[in-house]
Amino acid sequence: MDAPINPSLSVDCVVFGFDGRSLKVLLIERRYRLPDGQSEPDFKLPGSLIYENENVDQAAHRVLEQYTGRRETYLRQLHVFSDPDRITGDELSWLQAHYRVETIRVVTVAYYMLVKLDDTLLTQVRTHGARWIELEQIHQLAMDHKQILAYALDTLSKQLMAEPIAFELLPRKFTLRQLQDLYEGILGIEIDNRNFRKKVLSSDYIQPTGEREKQVAHKPALYYTFNRQKFRKDTRQKFRLNFINWQL
Amino acid sequence: MDAPINPSLSVDCVVFGFDGRSLKVLLIERRYRLPDGQSEPDFKLPGSLIYENENVDQAAHRVLEQYTGRRETYLRQLHVFSDPDRITGDELSWLQAHYRVETIRVVTVAYYMLVKLDDTLLTQVRTHGARWIELEQIHQLAMDHKQILAYALDTLSKQLMAEPIAFELLPRKFTLRQLQDLYEGILGIEIDNRNFRKKVLSSDYIQPTGEREKQVAHKPALYYTFNRQKFRKDTRQKFRLNFINWQL
Repeated sequence: MDAPINPSLSVDCVVFGFDGRSLKVLLIERRYRLPDGQSEPDFKLPGSLIYENENVDQAAHRVLEQYTGRRETYLRQLHVFSDPDRITGDELSWLQAHYRVETIRVVTVAYYMLVKLDDTLLTQVRTHGARWIELEQIHQLAMDHKQILAYALDTLSKQLMAEPIAFELLPRKFTLRQLQDLYEGILGIEIDNRNFRKKVLSSDYIQPTGEREKQVAHKPALYYTFNRQKFRKDTRQKFRLNFINWQL
Repeated sequence: MDAPINPSLSVDCVVFGFDGRSLKVLLIERRYRLPDGQSEPDFKLPGSLIYENENVDQAAHRVLEQYTGRRETYLRQLHVFSDPDRITGDELSWLQAHYRVETIRVVTVAYYMLVKLDDTLLTQVRTHGARWIELEQIHQLAMDHKQILAYALDTLSKQLMAEPIAFELLPRKFTLRQLQDLYEGILGIEIDNRNFRKKVLSSDYIQPTGEREKQVAHKPALYYTFNRQKFRKDTRQKFRLNFINWQL
C-alpha cells in the first residue's frame, strides 16, 4: 500500500507545427491489438520508454529524431503525468509486449516542441508511420494522450501571450495574415484585423523584408521577419524602466 | 544498452519561506552512513520515493505535510532530473536501505513550493528533523540537490518578475521594506528605494491597510496588503488593450 514502487518511465512529445494555415500535431498511427485478435487503428503521441543510458531530455530528442529526422528544435518539459491508473489492462499489456519489459505502472514526462513545418518535414514523417493532423481534427487519442495534448495547448496559449514563440512555428519570412492565423488558431479567437496590424507594425522587431508573396491568386502580401536581437534589446530596456512587471 | 529500464521515482521539494528579512529554504539534516561505519551529518531537500497508490503531486503534498504539518500551499512541478548517474554508489545504497527497495537508478521530479513563514511553521519543523536555512548559508547539499535548488531559485526569480507571487511568501500584511527586501534577496540586486516605492504605490492592487508596525525601534512603517481581485481585474483589462504582450 504505502510501499515505494519502481514504475516504467516514458516521454511523450506534443510536437506542434504550423503549415501557414492551421496548427498541426504530430501523431503516430498505432494498430492496437485487441484481445479478440482484431485490430483497430488509433492515434497516440510520439513517445518512448526511457533507455538505460539516457536522461529524459535525451529520450525526447531521440523520439523527435526517429519521426522527423531532426534532433534540434524548441523543446521544453511540460508536466509529469503519473496517476497510478493512467495506463492499465490492455494498454499495459501492449506496452509490455512492445518494449519487452515487465511493468505495472507507467509514469510519463510530457514534452512540448515547436517546429517550423516545411515540405521536407511534411514528407519525412510519412516514411516513419507518423502523420501531421490538424488540431481541429483530433477527437480522441490513445491512453491519456488527449489530456496531455490539452495541457500542452493550454501552455502554448499562455506562452504565446507572454513570449515571442510564434516565430518558432512560423517560417523565417511570413505574412501578417499568417501571424494572425497562428494566433487565432491557437487561442481559438477572432482578432480584429486592423488592430492586429497596427499593434504588430508598431513594434520595432517585426520588420518588412521588402519581398512579396509569389504565385498567389490574391494581391501578394508583404513578407515580414522577426528580429530577435532587436527584440531582446527592446525588452531589456523596458525591463529596466518597469522594474516590476506583472502582466498576467 | 538501448533497453528500457524501470527507475525508482522520487519527488524532491524546494520549499521557500521568507521570515520578513531573508529567504529561507527547508532542509533535512541527514546522518549519512559512510561505508567505514562513521557518519557525518549533511543536508538534503525534503523528498520521498513515490508510493504505489499516489501520483507525484500527492507525494509532494505528503512530503510537505510530513515536515510542516500543512498540506496545502503554492506548489508547482519544476523539472525532472534524470541523468543516469545522478545517484550512484553509497548514495544509492543509502536509498535502498532507507526505502527497502531494489533500485539501480533514481529519477526525481523536483517541486517548488512557497509558504508564508510564521512562528508555528518555524517551530513545527523543528520537531520533524527539518530546518529552515537561510539561502546564503547553503553551501552544499547531498546528491544533486544543490543543482535542483539553483534551478528552483532561477525559476523563482523569473516568476517574481512576471507574476505577483511575492505575496505567496509575504504575510497578509507587509511593509514596503519587507516587499523590497524580498525582491532584493531573491534577485540578488539592490533596488533604488524611491523608484521602488513610487512604482509600487502607483499600482492599484497594493493597498494601505491603515495599520502600522508596533513595538519597533525605528519609525513604525505602514502595513500594506495585496488585493488579488483588483489585480485580476486590472490585468484582464490590460490584456484586452494590449492583445499581444511580449514582455520577457
